[in-house]
Parts: sequence; C-alpha cells; structure tokens
Amino acid sequence: MVRAKDKILEQIKSPADLRKMAPEKLSEVCDELREYIIDEVSANPGHLGASLGVVELTVALHYVYNTPYDLLVWDVGHQAYGHKILTGRRENFHTNRKLNGISGFPKRDESEYDTFGVGHSSTSISAALGMAIAAGLKNENDRKIVAVIGDGAMTGGMAFEALNNAGASKSDLLVILNDNNMAIDPNTGVIGQYLMNISKSGTYNKVKKDVWEGLGKLDGFGKKTRKFIQKNQHALKNMLLTENNLFEAFDFRYFGPIDGHDLEYLTEALNDLKDIPGPKLLHIVTKKGKGFSHAEMNQTKFHAPGLFDKNTGEILSCGCQVNKAPKFQNVFGETLVELAEKNEKIVGITPAMPTGCSMNLMLEKMPHRAFDVGIAEQHAVTFSAGLATQGIVPFCNIYSTFMQRAYDQLVHDVATQNLHVVFCLDRGGLVGEDGPTHHGVFDIAYMRAVPNMIVSAPMDETELRNLMYTAQLDEINQPFSIRYPRGCGIKKDWKMPFEKIEIGKGRQLSEGNDVAILTIGKTGIHAQMAIKSLNDKNISAAHYDLRFVKPLDETMLDEIFEKYDYILTVEDGVIKGGFGSAVLEFMAEKGYSAHVKVLGVPDRFIEHGTPDQLYKICGIDEDGIIAAVMKMMGR
Amino acid sequence: MVRAKDKILEQIKSPADLRKMAPEKLSEVCDELREYIIDEVSANPGHLGASLGVVELTVALHYVYNTPYDLLVWDVGHQAYGHKILTGRRENFHTNRKLNGISGFPKRDESEYDTFGVGHSSTSISAALGMAIAAGLKNENDRKIVAVIGDGAMTGGMAFEALNNAGASKSDLLVILNDNNMAIDPNTGVIGQYLMNISKSGTYNKVKKDVWEGLGKLDGFGKKTRKFIQKNQHALKNMLLTENNLFEAFDFRYFGPIDGHDLEYLTEALNDLKDIPGPKLLHIVTKKGKGFSHAEMNQTKFHAPGLFDKNTGEILSCGCQVNKAPKFQNVFGETLVELAEKNEKIVGITPAMPTGCSMNLMLEKMPHRAFDVGIAEQHAVTFSAGLATQGIVPFCNIYSTFMQRAYDQLVHDVATQNLHVVFCLDRGGLVGEDGPTHHGVFDIAYMRAVPNMIVSAPMDETELRNLMYTAQLDEINQPFSIRYPRGCGIKKDWKMPFEKIEIGKGRQLSEGNDVAILTIGKTGIHAQMAIKSLNDKNISAAHYDLRFVKPLDETMLDEIFEKYDYILTVEDGVIKGGFGSAVLEFMAEKGYSAHVKVLGVPDRFIEHGTPDQLYKICGIDEDGIIAAVMKMMGR
Repeated sequence: MVRAKDKILEQIKSPADLRKMAPEKLSEVCDELREYIIDEVSANPGHLGASLGVVELTVALHYVYNTPYDLLVWDVGHQAYGHKILTGRRENFHTNRKLNGISGFPKRDESEYDTFGVGHSSTSISAALGMAIAAGLKNENDRKIVAVIGDGAMTGGMAFEALNNAGASKSDLLVILNDNNMAIDPNTGVIGQYLMNISKSGTYNKVKKDVWEGLGKLDGFGKKTRKFIQKNQHALKNMLLTENNLFEAFDFRYFGPIDGHDLEYLTEALNDLKDIPGPKLLHIVTKKGKGFSHAEMNQTKFHAPGLFDKNTGEILSCGCQVNKAPKFQNVFGETLVELAEKNEKIVGITPAMPTGCSMNLMLEKMPHRAFDVGIAEQHAVTFSAGLATQGIVPFCNIYSTFMQRAYDQLVHDVATQNLHVVFCLDRGGLVGEDGPTHHGVFDIAYMRAVPNMIVSAPMDETELRNLMYTAQLDEINQPFSIRYPRGCGIKKDWKMPFEKIEIGKGRQLSEGNDVAILTIGKTGIHAQMAIKSLNDKNISAAHYDLRFVKPLDETMLDEIFEKYDYILTVEDGVIKGGFGSAVLEFMAEKGYSAHVKVLGVPDRFIEHGTPDQLYKICGIDEDGIIAAVMKMMGR
Repeated sequence: MVRAKDKILEQIKSPADLRKMAPEKLSEVCDELREYIIDEVSANPGHLGASLGVVELTVALHYVYNTPYDLLVWDVGHQAYGHKILTGRRENFHTNRKLNGISGFPKRDESEYDTFGVGHSSTSISAALGMAIAAGLKNENDRKIVAVIGDGAMTGGMAFEALNNAGASKSDLLVILNDNNMAIDPNTGVIGQYLMNISKSGTYNKVKKDVWEGLGKLDGFGKKTRKFIQKNQHALKNMLLTENNLFEAFDFRYFGPIDGHDLEYLTEALNDLKDIPGPKLLHIVTKKGKGFSHAEMNQTKFHAPGLFDKNTGEILSCGCQVNKAPKFQNVFGETLVELAEKNEKIVGITPAMPTGCSMNLMLEKMPHRAFDVGIAEQHAVTFSAGLATQGIVPFCNIYSTFMQRAYDQLVHDVATQNLHVVFCLDRGGLVGEDGPTHHGVFDIAYMRAVPNMIVSAPMDETELRNLMYTAQLDEINQPFSIRYPRGCGIKKDWKMPFEKIEIGKGRQLSEGNDVAILTIGKTGIHAQMAIKSLNDKNISAAHYDLRFVKPLDETMLDEIFEKYDYILTVEDGVIKGGFGSAVLEFMAEKGYSAHVKVLGVPDRFIEHGTPDQLYKICGIDEDGIIAAVMKMMGR
C-alpha cells in the first residue's frame, strides 16, 4: 500500500535506509510508523498494543545495530509489526495474517531480518544465546545479538533457564526487558511487581539521563570505552545499576530502568551497550498501546482488538454477535462460574489468559478461587496437581498449543498419579490467523497416548457445558480433558439444564446406510452439512459424534464396523496418531475389516488464514468430506 | 529386614515414634539411618548420595513437623530413602526398585507420607503451593507445607514459575533449598555459583549459630514469638538474611545458609520457621554422600553406584562388562566425539546428564563445543534451535522421558522452522527400575505427530552409530531424532567404519512366508529370538527392522502388505499412536487389508522392575511375540 502521507516511511526500503538518516529525523519515523500501524490494524485485525509500545525501540534497534548481520530476536512477536514494516514488508503489510500473506509473527521464511520464528513466549533468550555461541564458534566476534523480551514473558520458566545458562557462558548478549507491566492481561506474580518497584524507586530518577549522558561522552572512545568500562566495573555499577539486582544474581549486568519512549536516550544507551562485553540486560519501561489513547486506556482489549474505528476507538462487532451464537470461550467462562457456585471444590487456573479464555468472569466473582499464575503452563499444571491431592477440583484452562509446554507435567504430575484435574484445552484445532505456531492440532495425538486420561471434545456449546458438568462430578477420579475450538459455535440456546454425559459414550446424530462418518469435536458440524449434500447425491451417510477419543465408545464402534464397509473419520487435529488412528487401532484389535479413510490435518505445518480457508486446505470442511466419501465409494 | 544393630530404628514404626524421642537421641537415629541406607543400597542398587546427604534434614523434618498431617514434598525423590525408612517402610526397604517392591521415589499409592509422586525435577514448589492454597480454602490453617528442593532442581524453569506465583500468593509455605552444589553431575550455570558465593560469604559465618541461638531463646513464647518476628521483620532481616537476595526478589523471606548436617541447629531453625507466616526459603548446605567417604569423594559415581563393596567402596561390575557389549550410552558418547572431530559444525548439548548420556567424553575433549546447560530441557532445545539457525549442527541429547519437558520447544522452535537439530533420545522404552516416571514410552507417539521430524530408532549399536553419522550430514536439512534404549546392546564389534543410512529405509533381516514381524528399535532383538523359536514350531516368520517410524519405508510396506495376511508390529513404546498405529494408518491410506496385531506398551503406567520383567508384562519379549503370532494364526 503506497500512501501519500508516508513521507519518510516510503524512503525506508530496508534498515540500511533508516541508518542513513540524521538522528533528528527518527522521531518523524516513529510518528509515521505508529500511524501506519494504527491505520492498518484498524482495518485488518491483528495485534495492536504491543507493537505501538515498541515503536521507539524498534527504530532505535535498527538504527543502532547493523541488521540483519546483527541478530535481533523478538520474544512472542506480537510487537514486531514495526519491525516488519521497516524491514521491507510495508507494502505487503495489508496482507498481514491473511492466507498467503505475511505472518503476524516473525518468521524465518519470510525475511532475513526475522532471525527466529516466534509465537509462544519466553524463547528469545535461549535462541539468542544459541546465536551468540554460534558467532563465537565461527569467530564472528563483531556480530551483536539482541533479544527483546517482555515482562510477561519473563514469568515463563524457560527464560530463567536461559538466564542461568547465559550468565555462566559469559557470552556477548544483550537482553532488552521491555517492561509494560502487562502480558495480554495485567502481569501477575512477583516479577511484575519487582520490576515496578525498581521503576518507581529512587534509582530510576537518580540514574536516568544524567548518568547515561555521562556515559555518552565516552562514546567516541571505541575500544578505549570498552577498556574503561571493563576497568571500572564496580564504579559503573554504583552509578548505573540497581544494586544486588535479581538479574545480577544471574551474572547479567543490569542497566536501567530507562524510558523506552525516549528515542534519543534509547539510541544513546544502545550505542553505549554495544561496547560492553558479556551478558547484559537493559530494562526499559514502555506503555502498551502508546500513542493511541484508547489502547493506552484499555490495554487488554486493544491487545488484539479486531476491527476498530481509529477515530472513536469503537471496537466493531464480529460476526458471531450477529448470529447470536456465543463463543465457546464465553460458554466456558459462564459455565465455570455456574458450576463453581454449586461445587465449592472447584477452582480455576489460567496461565495468563483470563480474558482470552473468559476465566476473568470467575476471577471477578470469586477471586479467592481463581488463579492467574502468569505465563507458566508447567507450573499451572503441577499447581493443579497439588490442589487435586487435597480434594480440590481444578479446572486448568490452557490453550491447546500452550499445553505442549506442560506435557511432562500432565504425564508425570497428573496422569501418573491419576489425579482429578480437569483440563480445558481452549483453541483446539486450526485457530486461523495466528497460524502454525498457534494451531492446536497435536493435542488429540499427545493426550490419548497418556494412560488414565479421559480425552473428550464437544461438537457444540451445549456439549461443552455438559462435559464440564460431567468432569467435575465426584465420581470422576481421574484426569479429564475437554478440547474445544476458538470462536463461535452454532447454538443460540446453549444454556440448558446440566446433563451428565456417560464417559466414553458417543451419540448417533443421523442414520444412513452407505457410509458411516465418525467425527470428534467441531468437525461434526462440517459432517452434518456434508451429509445433507450427500443425500442429494443419493448417498446415505450416518453420522456418529464420538465425543470421546478415549475411552472410545466400543459398543458403538462394534455396531459401526459390523454394519458399514465404508467408514470416514474426521478431526481437526493431526492425522498421525489422532482420532482416526484410534479407530484404526480398534479395528485391528477387534479384527474388523473395512475401508477406512482418515481425514484430518496432514503431516505438514498449516499456515495462517481464516479457519474456513484452512479447513478447506486440509480437506476437513463440508466439501472435503463430500469429496472423500465420493472417492472412497468410487463415485 | 530385622537387624540386631538397628536398636533405635526398630523403635520407629512411624514418625510419631520418632517425635516421642528426646532430642539428644536424634543423632543416634541419624547414625543408624545412614548405616541402614549404606548397607541396603550396597546390596540392592539404588540412589545413594542424595539420601545420605539429607539424613539430618529428614530426621529433623519428621521430628519438627506433624507428618503426615503436615505435608512434605520431596523434589525429584532420589533423596527420600531415609524418609521411606522412617515412615513405615524399613522392613520392606530391601524390595526397593524391585518388581512389586517399593518404588525408588516417593509415590502416593505407597504411603500417606508420600504426598506427591516425583522422579522428574523442579516440581515440588508448584505442588506444595497447590497444597498450601488448598489448605487455605479448606480452613486448615494449622497445616504446614514444606517443599525440599535441590540446587540442581533450581535450574529447572518451572521452579521459578512457582516462586513467582508463590511469592505473590503470600501462602504459608516453606521451601528448603538443599544446596550440595550438585545435580547428578556438578551443577552448572549461575545459580549454583550464586549459592556457593552466599555460602562462602561473610554472612554465612556471621549469621550462623549465634543469631539462631538468639532466636532460639524466643522459642518458648509461641504466639509472642510470632508477633515479635512480625513486628521486627526489618531488624530480623538484617540479622538473619542475606540482603537483597535472589529469593527476596520473589518475595520469599530468605533464611540461611545453615549447615544441613548440624541436627540441633536444623531442628531449632525449623521450629522457629513454623511460626513465620508467608512464603519463606531456608537455604541449607549439605554434602552429597555425607558419612560415606567414597561417596563424598566421588559424588557423581555414587549418585547411583550399582552394587558396591561398602567396606572398600569398590563398585562391582555390571553384567554388560562381562559380555563385553557396550552400553548404547558409550556408543553415543564415543561416536559423538569421533563425528565432531571430523565435522566442526557439530556441538553437543545436554541438560545436566553428561555422565548419564556419556557426553562427558566430549566435554573433556572439546569443552568449548559441548554444553551442559543445567536441568533445563526447554532451554536445551531452543538453545539448540538458535545454534542451528547459524549453521551449527547441535546433537541435543535428552532422555526420552525428559523430552516431554521440551515438547513445545521441539514443535515450536525446531520443527516449525525445520531446523537441523539432531535429537538423541536416550533411555527410550522401558527403563526398568526407575519405573513409571522414567519410562521413555511416549516418544514415538508424540514425535511422529510433528511435521518435518525424522523419527528413527536403531536396533543395535552399529545402527545407532550409523544413524548418528547420517543425521549430521549436510544433506539433512531438517530435525532428526534417534531414540535408543538404556543399557547394553548386543554387538561387541560395534566400532565399524561409518555407513550412511538412507532416510526412511528399513531392512529385512530374515525371510519367511507365514507372517511378517515389523519391529522398531531394540524390540528387533526380541523378534529375532522369537523367530528362531517359531521356526521350531513350523511357523515361518519374516523380520523387518523398519529403523524409521517417519518417514516409513512405504516401498517395503507395499511389499509386506502385498505378500502377507498376518502382520505383527512390535515396539517398546505406547500402542496408542505409536509405530504400529503408523503402520495401520499406512494400511488404511493404501487400502490394504490384513490381520495386523500391534504389540507395545498397553494403556496403563508400567511399574518398576528389571527391563526383562517389564517386557514380559507388556508382552513384547520373545515369549510375548511368539504367543501373539500363535494366537493370530489360530495355533
């Protein structure tokens, strides 16, 4: 998109162009960049607040460092829009998050400036340390490595694993801690408070510009500066560092905190830090949503606001509100409160996704019984296990893709001990625009491998509600997982009286003679549509919604394999090891023989696009099911 | 086992008996307990050093706390032998780690004193926090919760996730940091050094007994003590705490370091801490192997020494040294060095298992190219990914069971980016005496679900060597996993010239007409034995060692399905979603029909025992294979 008002931005085809500019031009770059992001994201939904917060940092980094030779690693990547726009993707930015368009996250395939693909949090220090060690091994000692990590991501344990290793390694590595006191929701836990205390302490005011400007004067010395700094570590420490700081315990030199929106100061600081060897951390304080007042005031909502009016800040309604079927997330949130009101053993646990999963409803209504534990999936699961040992029934809500972070805890701390923890796997299946890092497509395969685990997936909102009801009953003495998709369902009247669902019991939704279609979860809706069309082609298809991947409804499967020669299974998860595979295992074990076709996500990473586009690509939408049935039956 | 010399121990049927004893008797308890552990573990192999190191702590904890009402959580559990002996399992202790005997780790099924099952590290703070929150919800405010965690386990990220959440929760929770400066190997990273600095600092000597004894005088005051402490937090801090400590950044009150072998001091400290509310950490310094000089001097070897002479300290040879076939681990370690000498791009990465996996050979020979990153599997994998982005070829060796900790990093940081990282999954399959927390049985299922990943398993040592050779070749531009078992193989002459193995190419090892036996990994050896016996029964079985679970050798499978009506698959991993399941998916996709029987680990957790006992239980040993073939063929 070429726009008349991007006077400076359009001169920047790559960071090399930026670096040619006079320092006093940079604030104009920031202004245009900020406006560009707001214009684009208001019209084409994406992540807003994080990128607005790092406009100055982004410009400063590409101005000071010799990218792409110097390597920048962005943690999570929600904040990388400015980076993308400055690194040759401005004209394609309108394709952000669209099928075949650019990714909403840094991605190695997309640009040499995207040094490391991200999406999940807390990976940047580990990756950057790998790059720093590699530079050492390859004698590229002039190559600079910078990781940018938020305070939210710092609650993820692997960031500390990396600090521990990096501090010991003595590698040249700069970690920039971008502290806005937010994850998607406000940051919880001690780290956030700790950082805020530093920022508000006298040190912040005492150190500030004076000292940095003092350092600035040494800037011209190059090697001498480095030597000076090396020789005067202790004095500098007293000048610059908060004493006895958390990060110093990890042998990082701590600098800051400094105002991350003060561009001049930031570029000076980065320039100075280039000459300081070893592991070092620069703590900058920024405001999420900076420069767009609506986003500054309502940071959680404007993390990823969807369509909005950039003048009024009004967030425009999404499709589901029109058809009045609720999001699965709302059903989860409201049902959890209803159940918790009746069963005092229930507690809620979320690793930093209270708004995303709607556990904010419980956090508001019963704050002592709902826990946002930070971006800390591993802890969330083992914390749940600890609660369950004492007779509490935790509803641990984790996005399917993030449950990959806690697979060992799920196996080792919950399943091995057969504890009654209810796992609600939100955003199971193809999530759409967030793309391959966020698709929740492995869960069926990795969950069903785990002994003691009940693995279920509701087809619609009422089923979700009833599975949640069933999962919390006293008679359930084992782990229970419920995976459900992102976004809206189909049932407007979902809030019906609770009904218990028998464990391992599927349901037949339509009858038919030619072929049996077995579905799990939301793909049942695709199957229902396909069956109508198949009827028009004189193919009579029965539909079975299995509900449970484990235990399978063996009685129902016996009937199916006895009656049908043609069986189709459909799931929105990987084919390798998934639901269809479970059906094949049953068939082999029982000695049945049939033509079974397994539909699901093929063995490759599926890119971003709308969910419907991606269902089509995987052949698990209505058309895909129809085509598979026709092919199987030779029609 | 009743022994004349256990004069005091035999009076202790449970900790209640211990608590009736006069304080001056406790050192005798410690002496007998230590001797008991040495006697038992010398004759029946298990974990020695860790338990010897915490004899005083164990006695002090059960003496001061009202177990099992008060809840003790042991991290990892290598150190819990004393705990087991004092909590009613002394007479069964000779069954430790034997089939149907007691577990080598704390286990909830086994005793009400084992509050939380462990085996993997760094879980205790999360679990204990769950218990503390549960106690609060249940108004059991007199219930004390204690987690005991080692300095090695503190390098695991989830421990920090838990500290972050626990500090903010303000829960009553005591974390005892048992600092012996060791994991199994010497602790690496900054944390270990940081703790040692504290221990060696003036504070250690300054604080010590004087101050604690000062506190001791307040001991009689009960509520008054608490009030005093609450009122005088700041003064106490100055007296007792290392100022501005790492743990204080997490809002834990830090106490220590104190000598963990000074029983009197330790019991006093624990008594005092009972009255201090909120999250607190007691740092104790202990010696791994304490009281057994051989173990003190050689801590890594005596972590789990196998059989040894308790008088001379001589470690008695294991079976494999007799038959001269090497351990797979040695083949890995030696081959890695050989390859790295030829290919300078290769580096080695181990999360705290250099001796266990034999990467210590590379660490000695080329220390700048081998990295022990601490107990930090997540970081190990993403660090490897970072290295791979720069053209380095990392051999990341992680035990199969611990790879569960890094599943997300494997998917998100390596596979999504299709990076050339070589995963060596040590201890794949049933590991034997360590039991269900350590069996590496899920990996085939969870690895093959991941796009871009090559999934292989060698049947013997030469195959391991050649797979490692193949995996590091330049032409491999994707992640490559090699899983192999714990312990000895069968080939004495394994060190042959390297041979490249074609990716996805299986091999036929014997011909036969009646049935095809398809194996992966070590189970091929069981199949070879079974085939000989089947021949004697006039059943002619062909043997195919597939080598690769992904990509499957489809050409070979076409031949097999075209030729055989009876097909048996064998693996030492879970049936649900594993290798056999992959074969069934192939069959369904290609429209073949055959009687396929899948042998593997059934859908339950398999207890501890010798590997051979466990193979038999799962029906995947020679007899199991014979029986399955006979049954399938109606014989």
